[in-house]
Amino acid sequence: MLNAVARYLPILSWGRQYDRESFSNDLIAAVIVTIMLIPQSLAYALLAGLPAEAGIYASIVPILFYAVFGTSNALAVGPVAIVSLMTAAAIGNVAEQGTAGYAVAALTLAGLSGAILLVMGFLRLGFVANFLSHPVIAGFITASGVLIAASQLKHILGVPGGGHTLIEILGSIGAHLSDASLVTIIIGVLATGFLFWVRKGLKPLMLGLGVKPRMADVIAKSGPVAAVAATTVAVWALSLGEGGVAIVGDVPQSLPPFTLPSFNLDLIQALILPAILISLVGFVESISVAQTLAAKKRQRITPDQELIGLGAANLGAAFTGGYPVTGGFARSVVNFDAGAATPAAGAFTAVGLAIASVAFTPLVYFLPKATLAATIIVAVLSLVDFSILSRSWRYNKADFAAVLTTVLLTLGLGVEVGVSAGVALSIALFLYRTSRPHVAEVGLVPETEHFRNIRRHQVVTSPQLVTLRIDESLYFANARFLEDCIYDRLIGDKDVKDFVLMCSAVNEVDLSALESLEAINERLKSMGVRLHLSEVKGPVMDRLERSGFLKHLTGDVFLSQYQAMQALTPADPGPRAAAE
Amino acid sequence: MLNAVARYLPILSWGRQYDRESFSNDLIAAVIVTIMLIPQSLAYALLAGLPAEAGIYASIVPILFYAVFGTSNALAVGPVAIVSLMTAAAIGNVAEQGTAGYAVAALTLAGLSGAILLVMGFLRLGFVANFLSHPVIAGFITASGVLIAASQLKHILGVPGGGHTLIEILGSIGAHLSDASLVTIIIGVLATGFLFWVRKGLKPLMLGLGVKPRMADVIAKSGPVAAVAATTVAVWALSLGEGGVAIVGDVPQSLPPFTLPSFNLDLIQALILPAILISLVGFVESISVAQTLAAKKRQRITPDQELIGLGAANLGAAFTGGYPVTGGFARSVVNFDAGAATPAAGAFTAVGLAIASVAFTPLVYFLPKATLAATIIVAVLSLVDFSILSRSWRYNKADFAAVLTTVLLTLGLGVEVGVSAGVALSIALFLYRTSRPHVAEVGLVPETEHFRNIRRHQVVTSPQLVTLRIDESLYFANARFLEDCIYDRLIGDKDVKDFVLMCSAVNEVDLSALESLEAINERLKSMGVRLHLSEVKGPVMDRLERSGFLKHLTGDVFLSQYQAMQALTPADPGPRAAAE
Repeated sequence: MLNAVARYLPILSWGRQYDRESFSNDLIAAVIVTIMLIPQSLAYALLAGLPAEAGIYASIVPILFYAVFGTSNALAVGPVAIVSLMTAAAIGNVAEQGTAGYAVAALTLAGLSGAILLVMGFLRLGFVANFLSHPVIAGFITASGVLIAASQLKHILGVPGGGHTLIEILGSIGAHLSDASLVTIIIGVLATGFLFWVRKGLKPLMLGLGVKPRMADVIAKSGPVAAVAATTVAVWALSLGEGGVAIVGDVPQSLPPFTLPSFNLDLIQALILPAILISLVGFVESISVAQTLAAKKRQRITPDQELIGLGAANLGAAFTGGYPVTGGFARSVVNFDAGAATPAAGAFTAVGLAIASVAFTPLVYFLPKATLAATIIVAVLSLVDFSILSRSWRYNKADFAAVLTTVLLTLGLGVEVGVSAGVALSIALFLYRTSRPHVAEVGLVPETEHFRNIRRHQVVTSPQLVTLRIDESLYFANARFLEDCIYDRLIGDKDVKDFVLMCSAVNEVDLSALESLEAINERLKSMGVRLHLSEVKGPVMDRLERSGFLKHLTGDVFLSQYQAMQALTPADPGPRAAAE
Repeated sequence: MLNAVARYLPILSWGRQYDRESFSNDLIAAVIVTIMLIPQSLAYALLAGLPAEAGIYASIVPILFYAVFGTSNALAVGPVAIVSLMTAAAIGNVAEQGTAGYAVAALTLAGLSGAILLVMGFLRLGFVANFLSHPVIAGFITASGVLIAASQLKHILGVPGGGHTLIEILGSIGAHLSDASLVTIIIGVLATGFLFWVRKGLKPLMLGLGVKPRMADVIAKSGPVAAVAATTVAVWALSLGEGGVAIVGDVPQSLPPFTLPSFNLDLIQALILPAILISLVGFVESISVAQTLAAKKRQRITPDQELIGLGAANLGAAFTGGYPVTGGFARSVVNFDAGAATPAAGAFTAVGLAIASVAFTPLVYFLPKATLAATIIVAVLSLVDFSILSRSWRYNKADFAAVLTTVLLTLGLGVEVGVSAGVALSIALFLYRTSRPHVAEVGLVPETEHFRNIRRHQVVTSPQLVTLRIDESLYFANARFLEDCIYDRLIGDKDVKDFVLMCSAVNEVDLSALESLEAINERLKSMGVRLHLSEVKGPVMDRLERSGFLKHLTGDVFLSQYQAMQALTPADPGPRAAAE
């Protein structure tokens, strides 16, 4: 009982050893992350089509809940770019942006996502996320980054716009191009340029000026805050808001409110598939970050408990005015670099944001949306990396096909179609490959006990003995292929008296494959050929013995292929070239 | 060009060598199969909910087309039990039995199935059928057999009835039980009993009376014809039709008519999924029979060309008043046993059935439907074999789960749900298994060069060297699992300086797995542990070299695990038990 509680409440183990040093480390990290999160949270809410405060709310209670249930010491949970984009796509189908229904749909999506993650955690289904292959994720992130950057162009130009695919987004901006606001463009371009420079050029400059590396890092990380402050002051001082610059406006000065997601079944049905995709994508993003950071300190995270931590965080978001959240890459790295020692750093960040939401929200009234768009664009363009296309092309055409499909469909048909098609295609290609495994006819390399492919090596064979080595586990999808290979090789070759199936790479034989082996055994028998097996692995052998197959086998099972050859060829047949 | 024609027209190769002996063999086989097919065709049309003549029509042109395009010498194409049941289920959703729309839907289903099979054949997609695993097919056939037998009970009892699941069928019969016709029951039960006896007892009896085996076989096979003749005469002589016995009635006395499937898009959309399932199930049934029979004569069939043969046959059915057809098990075996030498036997059977459809259809006017139901029941109960449940339970729980799901869902929710769920579940279980492969920590068996699992054997290990052997190809679904295994083993073990991944069973490393290996390499480096590989296969090594991974690898790649151990352990550390 106590073990079960401890398993589901990691806070009990790290909380007991919490000391003054951890406290001070966590506090410093929290201050830095809070400063970084304020503009980010506002910006991502904008990206999700929600009022700016939703981003702040989504960064308070979810972080607290994750601190209680999560296992990573450095993961910083909250709104992230891709999940915000997926949220906008999912909710855009069921409600109009800016309506009360839209906000409720966002809460419901967070609630569903939380429930899905919790259920997966309790059922230990973390492995499901593995079916999102690395290349598919990389392609998806790149394409999403492009979509996100494109979707923010409207704020830089000061025009209305919408859409969930690249064509829709660009078309919608193009249609309103004549309404573009020059002042907005100036703010947007300056902010974007400044932020790019901060990212690339500021830190080297500071280091050159003799600033200590850690301090230079903190200053560089607060670039977005500077951009926010400068453009806000400019809009206020020059009254640019009246000149057509879209501003954030009133943000309620309050702690996160208590909210309820909808329990309307139609809405739930419409959101359940997007919620599954958001949960999986968010989980994969989060777990990659958490594992990378944990490994640096030889620490462990528990994927199934992470599901519970993220599930609790999303439920927290659903009941406190937020929207779907997950562990973010950039902020977690900052948190880690700033020295966060335990999940308490997250809790302190939450307190910092709560203070900000009560005390500082009036300060962002004049903040131009173009500045927030600039922070998003600069952040997501660092995610865009089309090199996955060339890398996968060079490495493996199947991976390339999955990546290309994911990229094109994400850009052309939206995030949900893109990531689903990528997953489906990579599974289909894997099944296809295993359904047509590599099969080699092998012969003995002279003066060794090794057997090699007769097409690649000069080996010794014997006309009455044929050996095929199959480089895959035998299961239903390749069972018939195996039959075909063997019949293809043996039909028409009347000399053959013995056939050996070399099983060194066969990790499993399922019931379909067993039945194929039985069919092969029968058919070879009617052709006057004995079937033998060699190098069968222990667990496979156990199964075959239990099934009774070995009783009907016309030939023998040999421990090694060499023993098979010695037993099945007449003494000293003389070496013989394979090409005969 | 000529090659391409010859490839798609197998008739050109066997037709050229056709001689008198083949002709006489084919003719004898055709006569026997024709006699067997007349009652069977009528009965299966009844099962599909179509007028009796549709069964005859579906056995004429399709056989001719298959004879031109097919590659099996013995396969007999026509209506079969399971495809007839699936046809009834598919069309039952879009049209009322007995209406013109129902017959058109049957033609359309045959047309779609023909088109699907042809496209699969030209794209060489025959392998797709392999994803119907043997146990799933066995479970599906057994459950379908039960459904078919249950659906025929209404004819034996002489009551109306319908439904596509076991509960619907039995419920519908139960609701009408008070309408049962005693005379019909007597005919049905007698016919069923007689046919069971013919199947089990007649042949031994004949042999006992000194009849030659081949003759005894022919007589036993014509049992259904005898039952048909006897009950038809009884109904006619005793005027039982007026006494409430349902009879076949008017069957048009004509050759197959020219018909057109519908090109209505709504209908096509409603039938496309069932058409895919029917095509796959029909193809699997057909190819299994064809392969079994071909292998007995050391002949080959070409699966992709078989798709074209079956596709042409179904298109033929669509344009000549038929419904979906495939290669039937029982009739093909009879055809083979009767000595059919070439596909011409099929063509002669088609001629025989054409004569029957013109000359003999008036004779079946008084044929009771109960007799046809009896022939179906006796035929399909031989397909019912629940032992697949116990066999799969003993062999492999994953196979058992797929079989049980298929059986229960086929009985409970119908054929389409049943077979789809079976396929989906067997793929999901395969992916699950490969996503959590067997991983063993290995050590050296003393005085050998063999490495074995340290949990099973007394082996030599060294505290600073850990070797894991992974028994599966590395791909996206198990890449993260591999990372977890390795970190789980190494975190907390500060003695370890070298880690070897033994790759003897790794047939492939996809890009996801490569990235995991890169991540593992980096993380182990930050833990002060070198990563080595051993026993990497040639094609995998080629890929790794091309990717540049080996340049960053902190350790080495060893040809054998023994070399790895020799290189990585200090000279003579002394043997050490694994259990330390």
